[in-house]
Amino acid sequence: MIVGMRTGTTPEEIDGVVQRAKSLGLSVQLNLGTDKTVVAILGSNTGQLPTEFFAVLPGVESVTRIMKPYKLASREFKEEDSLVSINGIEIGGKRIVVMAGPCAVESEGQLIEAGRAVKEFGASILRGGAFKPRTSPFSFHGMEKAGLELLARAKKQFGIPVITEVVDPHDVSLVSKYTDILQIGSRNMQNFALLTAIGKSKRPVVLKRGFSCTITEWLTAADYLLAGGNNQVILCERGIRTFEDSIRFSLDISSIPVIKRFSHLPIIVDPSHAAGHYSLVPAIAKAAVAAGADGLLVEVHPNPKEALVDGLQSLTPSDFARLMEELRSIAKSVGRYI
Amino acid sequence: MIVGMRTGTTPEEIDGVVQRAKSLGLSVQLNLGTDKTVVAILGSNTGQLPTEFFAVLPGVESVTRIMKPYKLASREFKEEDSLVSINGIEIGGKRIVVMAGPCAVESEGQLIEAGRAVKEFGASILRGGAFKPRTSPFSFHGMEKAGLELLARAKKQFGIPVITEVVDPHDVSLVSKYTDILQIGSRNMQNFALLTAIGKSKRPVVLKRGFSCTITEWLTAADYLLAGGNNQVILCERGIRTFEDSIRFSLDISSIPVIKRFSHLPIIVDPSHAAGHYSLVPAIAKAAVAAGADGLLVEVHPNPKEALVDGLQSLTPSDFARLMEELRSIAKSVGRYI
Amino acid sequence: MIVGMRTGTTPEEIDGVVQRAKSLGLSVQLNLGTDKTVVAILGSNTGQLPTEFFAVLPGVESVTRIMKPYKLASREFKEEDSLVSINGIEIGGKRIVVMAGPCAVESEGQLIEAGRAVKEFGASILRGGAFKPRTSPFSFHGMEKAGLELLARAKKQFGIPVITEVVDPHDVSLVSKYTDILQIGSRNMQNFALLTAIGKSKRPVVLKRGFSCTITEWLTAADYLLAGGNNQVILCERGIRTFEDSIRFSLDISSIPVIKRFSHLPIIVDPSHAAGHYSLVPAIAKAAVAAGADGLLVEVHPNPKEALVDGLQSLTPSDFARLMEELRSIAKSVGRYI
Amino acid sequence: MIVGMRTGTTPEEIDGVVQRAKSLGLSVQLNLGTDKTVVAILGSNTGQLPTEFFAVLPGVESVTRIMKPYKLASREFKEEDSLVSINGIEIGGKRIVVMAGPCAVESEGQLIEAGRAVKEFGASILRGGAFKPRTSPFSFHGMEKAGLELLARAKKQFGIPVITEVVDPHDVSLVSKYTDILQIGSRNMQNFALLTAIGKSKRPVVLKRGFSCTITEWLTAADYLLAGGNNQVILCERGIRTFEDSIRFSLDISSIPVIKRFSHLPIIVDPSHAAGHYSLVPAIAKAAVAAGADGLLVEVHPNPKEALVDGLQSLTPSDFARLMEELRSIAKSVGRYI
Repeated sequence: MIVGMRTGTTPEEIDGVVQRAKSLGLSVQLNLGTDKTVVAILGSNTGQLPTEFFAVLPGVESVTRIMKPYKLASREFKEEDSLVSINGIEIGGKRIVVMAGPCAVESEGQLIEAGRAVKEFGASILRGGAFKPRTSPFSFHGMEKAGLELLARAKKQFGIPVITEVVDPHDVSLVSKYTDILQIGSRNMQNFALLTAIGKSKRPVVLKRGFSCTITEWLTAADYLLAGGNNQVILCERGIRTFEDSIRFSLDISSIPVIKRFSHLPIIVDPSHAAGHYSLVPAIAKAAVAAGADGLLVEVHPNPKEALVDGLQSLTPSDFARLMEELRSIAKSVGRYI
Repeated sequence: MIVGMRTGTTPEEIDGVVQRAKSLGLSVQLNLGTDKTVVAILGSNTGQLPTEFFAVLPGVESVTRIMKPYKLASREFKEEDSLVSINGIEIGGKRIVVMAGPCAVESEGQLIEAGRAVKEFGASILRGGAFKPRTSPFSFHGMEKAGLELLARAKKQFGIPVITEVVDPHDVSLVSKYTDILQIGSRNMQNFALLTAIGKSKRPVVLKRGFSCTITEWLTAADYLLAGGNNQVILCERGIRTFEDSIRFSLDISSIPVIKRFSHLPIIVDPSHAAGHYSLVPAIAKAAVAAGADGLLVEVHPNPKEALVDGLQSLTPSDFARLMEELRSIAKSVGRYI
Repeated sequence: MIVGMRTGTTPEEIDGVVQRAKSLGLSVQLNLGTDKTVVAILGSNTGQLPTEFFAVLPGVESVTRIMKPYKLASREFKEEDSLVSINGIEIGGKRIVVMAGPCAVESEGQLIEAGRAVKEFGASILRGGAFKPRTSPFSFHGMEKAGLELLARAKKQFGIPVITEVVDPHDVSLVSKYTDILQIGSRNMQNFALLTAIGKSKRPVVLKRGFSCTITEWLTAADYLLAGGNNQVILCERGIRTFEDSIRFSLDISSIPVIKRFSHLPIIVDPSHAAGHYSLVPAIAKAAVAAGADGLLVEVHPNPKEALVDGLQSLTPSDFARLMEELRSIAKSVGRYI
Repeated sequence: MIVGMRTGTTPEEIDGVVQRAKSLGLSVQLNLGTDKTVVAILGSNTGQLPTEFFAVLPGVESVTRIMKPYKLASREFKEEDSLVSINGIEIGGKRIVVMAGPCAVESEGQLIEAGRAVKEFGASILRGGAFKPRTSPFSFHGMEKAGLELLARAKKQFGIPVITEVVDPHDVSLVSKYTDILQIGSRNMQNFALLTAIGKSKRPVVLKRGFSCTITEWLTAADYLLAGGNNQVILCERGIRTFEDSIRFSLDISSIPVIKRFSHLPIIVDPSHAAGHYSLVPAIAKAAVAAGADGLLVEVHPNPKEALVDGLQSLTPSDFARLMEELRSIAKSVGRYI
């Protein structure tokens, strides 16, 4: 941590900084520049120390972190890539894993039809929402427990794992009974009560990026899960909020190489929620694979026109089949397979 | 709702839109322009209808809402200003209500000292956090139940209401036992499980704006509380995330007149979390009162240098006293008092 | 254009809207809803009409465009893809065109070495800046006329076209004498004096997206060039400003399919300025090709460590060679070639 | 400047950083932490040094500035507030200076009527645009030279200074002949050719903030003007682009105390362009004065309904009169006058 003192600082002010560092068990080096005095605060875990412990002291102008605030999710903590294994399907390795299915479970017929299609065309995992967080209280909020039961049935019928979202910390064990992977939605990335509960559960979990959270905050949220003892954590980029209004969210394609550089966790991409429109999904999905994503989370609906939730961003089974064909070729170009 | 068809649309595509509208019990008017056909969808509650019910149909290029997606929080639903009354203190009227105190309850001594100071200098309500949502799992998370007990003691000693944050839907009744106003933090503005629980509780509640949520989303979140039967809802602007990096969050001063125009709910401002630095708090607080805010939520700490949380943005009691003096004069300039 | 009246509007207010429409030569259709009256304004060119011509009238609550504000750049104006041809190199066709070279021309040796490398590894066009817009007045601003002369020499030696930036409307003819493609930088996307001058020049031009401009504003800026009679316009996505701080700008990958949907103009991508760091350039470049970009603009420097400008984001010749290999394979996966 | 080395860096890599610093005439101090080595680079003008001079070296993970990149605009360079004096009207002192008038000069009648009204109600300076930068090439672009002549006439008739925008570096001397203050629009804040020309002109200038530029970039742009020898620089906050869509731009109220902290230059606020709607202008104007702005730039039109440009955000003369009354009282509350 680097503490920049204001021009004309006094020896007493500098000493205040030094004393505080010592009281925290840290060591200190002074850099007396021509215009500015800079105090370097040294020690392990300075990344987890609030900068304001120093910023609040008299004479201090700026405090800059050199260490990142996250720890367990960092590549410095664990150098080799983490693999998350679900019923033998490995996420984070050479294979690019595709999770597909409808946004919301709506009926047995819809889920079975979707499940059959996505399996046939190469998805390894079935997605479907039973609890739907919706911005309006007047919207459809999912089939809840009945939806979970349908997911369990589909899982059995097609022999593939299922992933679904949890929205309340007290539902974690219920949802875990029926499904293989828990999903934390974008609006809950900093719902610390939920993160803590899922950390303790030790179930495989997909942590979606908050649509206005930095990559640093995202990895710090992952630290909640890891600190709870859950190391089956998969990150999911799903678009961030920007000023651009032609799409719902701007997919942050750069987050893929940035995550690969700073973290050991696998990262998948959800092109559907970012795009908000089916016609834009294939281009984003292909870009994600080319940029190094470890998987995709794609919405596929047997009949998007009749979907209760997010039909506009869902691919039809035949669109999905065509996309998978192209993705296989791109995966090969970057030394991977689907 | 206005459905814009693509250039060269067919009569069958237009009919598809008309039939869907009819199936939803809505009426329709066609506008055949020279270049574009536009279909106006008419009926009550079109604001609560997902636009994609139409956007997903063939030939549709754009769907635009005319009605807002929120309803109960809108000024069209209730024309006169709402007042929230807490132990006789009215929020939303002529009086500007100041809530002040430390970010986190740290000890009995700290809370009592803070409570004495803020009451003496004119605050009407004492704030203090017992459950602290923190971005890192390694930070101080509040005194929890012991903190609630200290708040109840301070409330009794100074005879003023207290406000504190709830972070888990299952803590609502516990927190309600000890305090007068519940606070929903920025990161929980779209935690729908929490909104639903507090809606049912019917306790006075301060709903902070999500730091990346639009005003429309904020009022739609307020609809969750109102739809649950809780009409004691106070909005709190606390800064939004922008590209500007000289402060923590950019306080959206325009949100005050915008809320006054579109909603009947009272709005207060938290200058401390926006600024992130005590030296910027007074200017923002004064601007908020001048712009028409109904109250302020200000961090005051007896000894900011020793604060465990957010000391950098806390005013000392004497800074707070000076600010209150200036605020009284500005309040008078805009026809109000503190 | 759709004019939404406030609830409880009067017949006189509606008539005011109708009369204004008529005075502008437009026709009108009224939609009397249960809660709201909506007036549809019909006619050609309503996209180019300021919405406030109606928004300012009494009783009007909202005005929504159905037509886009740009015209000449839209796919509705010209359905088939535009091709820009530079000395026989076609941009916007099956071939993905790579423009590469140093950010700034620094010396004859540097430019010749860079030119040789990029040509050898498959770039079709050489880039190099002679006039450098810099945020600080104390930075290196380019070799100016001497830089142009070096570019002309390199063009002759390697037999490939060159592209360089213009920053002052009065330099357009000077720069055109030495180079083949003019570049309008991100900070000048809405420099209307410069757009007008280049529109009149009819020289091939790369229009970089303003780092905080919407796609709609970008295409409207392209209309300036097209309206001046210059139809050799190439768009260049180079990243937008967001809250994310791990990279310089967030490349908006979705802009590629969005542009392809709404415009006939070719679009290339500059991964270097977006990334700001060489290690992130390859992933973004590959994503761009997979998403459908018509070309790339990549910084390559023979010795990035000694670069005067933007060395950190420059690839070495050998990194560039490796990237080109991967790009060829991805291009093939999406039915194109380099 | 602080250079953070990657974990496990080698002595050779550290030496590379040290050698580069020495070659730039800078001194160096090493801080060998337990986990990280940090190199402090010391010397004057490190703020003006590109960080990538070090970031590009092997083993370097991060480079952080301690000094700001701007210099002449900083309060460290000049401690006392700068005053800009125009025909005896001082900006930056106790008096809050109001500049008002129409967005665009449309006719003699319109300008004279506006000029009379704003003078009568207390404005000290008349504004009016002769050259209008417009996003679409099909919009009204101002009366140009004829507009300048009308401004000169109004200036004479009412005896007050006039301010108008310049958009082309080659128009600076023409515009200076007719008017007292030059204005640089938001889209031209980083038009370095224009900044350089106005820097040399030494005319009083209002530098509007780029709607997506940081305060640091804004002050660095001001350095262009100051470096050219022009020290009559007034900053103008006019709203920044955010995700919020209920207004045109979000006025960054915090920029006022931040500028006062880091710069000696006066700052005024344009509430009209931020709001985009007349009903929101008064609240923002009052907030600006309460927060410490040195002046306002307000659009007033005798008949907003007939305005050719930006009528929706213009106040009528009577609205303006009412606002001035309230502003006088708020100014007094913060120890100033109008």
